[in-house]
Order: sequence, then C-alpha cells, then structure tokens
Amino acid sequence: MAKLPKDLLGLRELNAEQIQLILDTATACKDIFSRDLKKVPTLRGKTVVTLFFEPSTRTRTSFEIAGKWMSADLVNLTVSSSSVAKGESFVDTARTLEAMGVDLIIIRHSLGGTPRLLADSVAAHVINAGDGAHEHPTQGLLDLYSIREKKGRIAGLNVVIVGDILHSRVAKSNIYGLTKLGAKVTVVAPPTLIPKGIGEFGVTIETDLDKALRDADVVNILRIQLERQTKAYFPTLREYSKLFGVNLSRLRQARPDLLVMHPGPANLGVEISEEVSVHDQSVITEQVTNGVAVRMALLYLLTGGGNKDEILH
Amino acid sequence: MAKLPKDLLGLRELNAEQIQLILDTATACKDIFSRDLKKVPTLRGKTVVTLFFEPSTRTRTSFEIAGKWMSADLVNLTVSSSSVAKGESFVDTARTLEAMGVDLIIIRHSLGGTPRLLADSVAAHVINAGDGAHEHPTQGLLDLYSIREKKGRIAGLNVVIVGDILHSRVAKSNIYGLTKLGAKVTVVAPPTLIPKGIGEFGVTIETDLDKALRDADVVNILRIQLERQTKAYFPTLREYSKLFGVNLSRLRQARPDLLVMHPGPANLGVEISEEVSVHDQSVITEQVTNGVAVRMALLYLLTGGGNKDEILH
Amino acid sequence: MAKLPKDLLGLRELNAEQIQLILDTATACKDIFSRDLKKVPTLRGKTVVTLFFEPSTRTRTSFEIAGKWMSADLVNLTVSSSSVAKGESFVDTARTLEAMGVDLIIIRHSLGGTPRLLADSVAAHVINAGDGAHEHPTQGLLDLYSIREKKGRIAGLNVVIVGDILHSRVAKSNIYGLTKLGAKVTVVAPPTLIPKGIGEFGVTIETDLDKALRDADVVNILRIQLERQTKAYFPTLREYSKLFGVNLSRLRQARPDLLVMHPGPANLGVEISEEVSVHDQSVITEQVTNGVAVRMALLYLLTGGGNKDEILH
Repeated sequence: MAKLPKDLLGLRELNAEQIQLILDTATACKDIFSRDLKKVPTLRGKTVVTLFFEPSTRTRTSFEIAGKWMSADLVNLTVSSSSVAKGESFVDTARTLEAMGVDLIIIRHSLGGTPRLLADSVAAHVINAGDGAHEHPTQGLLDLYSIREKKGRIAGLNVVIVGDILHSRVAKSNIYGLTKLGAKVTVVAPPTLIPKGIGEFGVTIETDLDKALRDADVVNILRIQLERQTKAYFPTLREYSKLFGVNLSRLRQARPDLLVMHPGPANLGVEISEEVSVHDQSVITEQVTNGVAVRMALLYLLTGGGNKDEILH
Repeated sequence: MAKLPKDLLGLRELNAEQIQLILDTATACKDIFSRDLKKVPTLRGKTVVTLFFEPSTRTRTSFEIAGKWMSADLVNLTVSSSSVAKGESFVDTARTLEAMGVDLIIIRHSLGGTPRLLADSVAAHVINAGDGAHEHPTQGLLDLYSIREKKGRIAGLNVVIVGDILHSRVAKSNIYGLTKLGAKVTVVAPPTLIPKGIGEFGVTIETDLDKALRDADVVNILRIQLERQTKAYFPTLREYSKLFGVNLSRLRQARPDLLVMHPGPANLGVEISEEVSVHDQSVITEQVTNGVAVRMALLYLLTGGGNKDEILH
Repeated sequence: MAKLPKDLLGLRELNAEQIQLILDTATACKDIFSRDLKKVPTLRGKTVVTLFFEPSTRTRTSFEIAGKWMSADLVNLTVSSSSVAKGESFVDTARTLEAMGVDLIIIRHSLGGTPRLLADSVAAHVINAGDGAHEHPTQGLLDLYSIREKKGRIAGLNVVIVGDILHSRVAKSNIYGLTKLGAKVTVVAPPTLIPKGIGEFGVTIETDLDKALRDADVVNILRIQLERQTKAYFPTLREYSKLFGVNLSRLRQARPDLLVMHPGPANLGVEISEEVSVHDQSVITEQVTNGVAVRMALLYLLTGGGNKDEILH
C-alpha cells in the first residue's frame, strides 16, 4: 500500500500511487463540509505550527482551518520581526519548535529549497506551503483533486497551463503532478516566461493560446505577479491580456466542457476576465474548498494516519 | 417571536424586538462569568473569522474570547500586509473565507459600508465590528445592556451622549438603539461636531453640558480621537475639557444616580477626569464584561441558536 | 506545604520551598512529552493571554503550547500598533483584559518592573516573561530544572554564568534561584559588564573564564546581545570570543561532566562555538523542552492547582 515520505516537499518527490492516496483521503475529508458540526478529534494532541516567512492569507488560513477542524493544537508564527530580529537562524527556529514538542511544521519561504533544509534538520514532519519559484505542492494537489472530481479522471486529459511558467511554483507542482497521473500538459506563455529544459518533463510548449485551447479539457490560468512584471517579459498588461488572457470569446471557441481553474487571487481583466471567473465552467471557488480537504488529508497522513475511514469519526 | 437578520450591520437595521432578544440572550450568557469553568460547547464545529483592517485590541479580543468560550474555531486575520500586498480585493478575501467553510465573519474597516458590501457578497453571517464613522453596533448593544442592567429599563430614561458626535460610530449606534427602545437622547458637542440632520432621529441637540446633565439618568462620554482633533473643531484640548469634560464637580451637580459610561480607552483628564472614571457611578469596567456577553449572544443567535436556555449547557 | 504567591514576577520573590514545588510539578508535566496524545483537560475553561510588548518567538510559543496542551483558551496580543496606537495605557489594557474574564496574563516588556505594576493593578494572575534587564523567571526555572534533572541536585554545585551579567535578566533570575537552592555561583564577565553590588547576592566574581571553569559543574553561557554591544564593553566580538567564548579547547580543560547550558538563540562562534553547542555535554535543546514543562507547571499552580498527580489526568 502507498505510504507518504516523512515530509511533503514537492510533487516531484511523490509517485502516482502516493498522489492517489492523498486525493482519495481528501475525498473522505471533503465530507466534513456537508456537516453541521465541522469538527473531528482525529488530530487531538498533535501540535502543528505554521511558519510563514512570506505573507499569506489564503494558504495559511486554509491550513489553520484544516488543523482546527481536526482538533490539532495550532500555533501561527509569521516570522519577520521576532526571531529574525534577534538574528536567530532559520534551522535554529525549527529545532527549537521541535524541542517544544511540535509534530508538524508548515513552512512558506521566499527561497526555493528552504523546506528541504528544514526537513533534513528536524524529525518533525514538514509541509512546503510554497517556496520561492520552486514548488507549491498543496496547490498542485488541490488542482489535481478539482480536476479529478469534475472530470472523473486525470489520465489522458489535455491540460493547458497558461501564464508565467518560469516564475510560477504553482505551474511546477501542477506539471509534476499532472504528468505523473498521465495527463497531457501544454504550457502556454510568452517565450521569455518558459523555463529552458521544461520539455524534459514531457510537456508541450505553445505560444498560441487559441491553438492550445482547441483540444483542452482543462485550462489552469496562472496569476500574473504584477509586482514582478517587467518590460523584459512582455510590453504591457494590455497586450498580455490580449494574447494570453482567458476571456469569454476564447471560452466559447473551446470545448463546451472546458474546465477553468485559477489558484487565486485573480487579476480580473488581465489573465482572466470577470465573466470567465464566475462562469459555470469555472471551479475557482471550489478549488478553495478542495484546498482545505487536501490539507486535512495531508495533516492526517503525515502524522501517522492511514485508514481514511477513521478520519471523520 | 423576534428573529435576527442574516447579519448584524448596524442598530439602524434592527427593530426593538430584535434588540431585546439580543439583550435577553446576553443576560443568559453573562452567567458564564460566575463560573469556574468558562467553556460551553454551544458553537463547537462552527468557524468564526475576525477580519480586521484596522488595529484593535479590545474589540477583537472580546470577540475572540466570546467565540472560544463557546468552543467555536476562531481564526484571526489582521489584514495589512498579506492579501492587500497581493492586491486581492476585499470581496475576494471574503468569498475565499466562505469557500473554506467559514460560518461567520467579524469585520472592522476604516470605510463605512464595507460590512454591508461583505454581507451582500457571501452567504456566511457578517458582524460589523466598527466601520469608519458609520456604526459600531456591538458597542451600542453593550451600552444598552449596561444601562438596562443598572436601571432596570431603557424606555423613558434621559440619556446624554457627549463628544464628537459627527465622527463617532459609537454615538450613531447608541442613538439608533436608545431611541428604538424609547429613551430620550440628548447629544452634547461643539456645534461643528454635530452632524447636520441628526434631529431627524428624534434626539435633542445641546451645546451646554451642565444644562444637559441636569435631568440625565445616563451620560455616555465619547472618546476624543486625539489623532483627529483639529483646530476646526475646538481651540485646545484644555478648552474642550473645560466645556465638555465630565469631572467630579459636574458629577456632583447631576442626579445622584447618574450612570457614567465610556466605551474606552479613556483620555483621562480630557473627556473624563480620573476621579469620575473610577467613581461608584461609573460602569466603564462592567461595560467591557458586558461586551463579551453581548458578543456571545450574537455569535449564538446569528449561527442559528434560538433558545437561550440552551446556551450554557 | 509550599504555596505560590498570586503572581510569578521574579525568582527573587520566591523561597526555596516554592521553587522546589514548581520544579517537582514540572517533572510531572514533562511526562506529557512521552505521550502520543499531548493534551490534558487541566486548564479547560481558563483564559490565558500573552501580552508581549517585545517580539519573541521562543518564549511566547513555549507558553502558547503549554497552555494549549492543558486545554486553556489562549489569546495572543502582540502590542505595537493596536492599543498603543490609540494611546491606551498599559494598566488600562490589563484591566480591560481582566474585565473580559481573563484568568492569567503573561507579559513581556522592555521596561523592568512592568509585570509588578500589572500584578498590582489586577486580580488576575501575572507571569513575567522577561522585563527589561530585570528578571526572566521562567528561564531561570527551566535552567534550574535542567540542572537538577542532569545532576540530581542543585545544592553544593559550582555554577559559572558567563557573559553580559549587567544587562541580562536571565543572569539575574539564575543567580536568585541558584543561590536560594544552595549552589555556589561564579559570574564571569568583562569588569564593565558586572553590576556593582552583585557580591551581596553571595556570588563570586571572576574575570578569568579558564580559572572559573576549572571546578565548575555547570556553565551557563549568556547570549551576547549583538544589538547592544558597544566599544564601552569590549573592543571586538573576536576579542570577546577569545576571552569569554566557550569553545572545545576550554571544554576539554574542564571537568568531564561539565554541563553546558545556553538560553538560546546562540551566536555560534561568539559566546559559544558550534562544536560545544552540539556536544554531548550540552543540554541546550533539552532546556527548550524543559521550558514547556516548567510553564505548564506554573500555569497549573497559579490558577489554583495543587496536586501534581492530577495534572495529567
């Protein structure tokens, strides 16, 4: 039977069986949303810390809710002033948390590779909640979950990922996860925003969005990092929107069952039009819901849980 | 039987029966203060988020304690850096929280009307914890509660509200609540700090504090927002204190059972003297206690509770 | 039988019997680390607030975990923007918290004496989590606990404290606690960093670390506050390290069972070398673990607990 490693650092490190185990467990967890009383004792007596070196509302809150619903003790550490002000090293902070009895550390950091450094330094479990431009595995997993839930499968699907592939940790986690589960992935971006060597991962490169969308089952639209946008990538936001923005006219030319996804928060009118964001084919809001379910599953599996039938009891 | 609307946006939106329901429910909730074990399972499995766009220790902590005593899962979001840094829209944040399964959102914002915008965008319940100069309904309710507790009734009482009526959300919520419950309200302030058209709400306008206090049963002293004080309002803080400050000499000229209230934190020596703030007739500290009881009542009623006898069991 | 005062302000205020009671209770609490389910209902229905006016990851998190494992309701207040922005006085904040039903306030402040001011103003229990250069009693207690656990006793031991004795609250709490329990304390520092009159507390003053270490059973190495370091104290960090840094060569000249302690976070290569920090004789990591146990014991004892056999049931 599939078993997870000590830590969730990236989807690159998982095999198809392990990813399926997480998705199957998340299915059981999602059942809690239909309950009047969203609380199970599954993680009672486990201590979970969110250690965020980058600001985040969505991801941190999603983990916090997942942990609290499972009755874990949850401690939030947004590091900026406190230990950094005292010059405490990053690994030192982690070892201190572990010595305090923390079972699992959820880390976000602007530097790629930091979660692995942490995981190698402590016996506690580590979940990567986004590290630089490297990976954002829980986002990748919730995207996989959302696709499987709507399409019934992932293998054989044509999935288009459009946006700044080069700097996107979401894109990377999606590519690893989708290809491992047998989807055909096409990345669409201006040539300057496509990383060299990405072809090795078995993805098709395309610069014409309309062409890519023609046979697509799913389009996953990346958020344009407005703060990172420079003239080097593309002339103007308006031109980006024209070439790579998903709007109603593009949606109409695609298959009628094209699934529209976006990790949020969306820049409406740039990479996605408002009409598309609220369209029947869009699952943006459900992705957020699925994020809690996937994170519940991970907290459960990493801290030793195995039998998904026991989660909600 | 009275029933609350989906959200608590302001006292303007409530009728007398609904306000009485909240006060009656708060009476049951206040019983928890006399207990050794301040914990009831009433809101177990409900998720409550405080979403504060303005700093606040008192109000946020009061809600947090109210929620935790009732066993809700409570998530604090002080928004400054995180989502705003990413340019995420306010409504987007709220919809994201709702998609995560949040049942109730408590919002404070410097812009009046923001809680309504939020309430119209989500199915989750919304409580206004103060929006600009508009309303601060939970403060209004705890003030009503404190008056009723000490005086046995509200109808027919002479209540004086003194201070910067123009910019005070506390004043507005008090005026709506007090007049709906049948009190006679007199507002006292320098002419420049009285909003035009306030007479329509059935309040008496007075600029002479001594005259207003003569027949008063209650004086509610507003906090001077030192940061907002400008020459346009009044020449100096010293002059304000002389004309509108409640001191021992004024207290002695008033009725011996005049109730002294202040929402806190007080600028001692400006709008209220230290002696008055700790006087037997002052209920400033009890107002804080009543604030937790009123907020427990609201969390209970809005999330579906109806029978106040069930709250503490 | 020994009984604690209402508050824990410093070790100077406690007698040997009271300190022993805390250490004995902590021994019972430490048992929770060996459990799979780290959760006991001991403080259910008690509300604990951390009120930190200085940033801190370690101490605040240690208290938060201690409180949550004992099922207390825990509210974190890091004060910087909120009430201070409104000009609210420190005592006002504390009285407000008390009026909200808070049972125990844990305070850290850059000004020595602030916890006492707080304790005198409220009926709630107060724990000093570090006040200026005055005391850090929970650090002192966890140091005592760590020594007793490893050496089996404290009376009669030779304990060397090396570093900036003048500005260190950790040093002061250690000196009070160690001398009360009968240890022989030697402080080692550059002459300018030794407070006048420290001899009155029954400690030996030494400026030669090698000489002091010769007969030492324990060396407690203080953190150099890099931000405070000035030319007035010592010429350079390098010279400090040469004269007062504990490195492998010094360790080898000391007794083979010399216990090495540091409150963390350490400046590796300055007051302690990396080799020494991870040496078999170092208990730095266990000190962190013991900190949670000691804080559990304090929360339990101050809020009315007496029988340590009841803590973990």
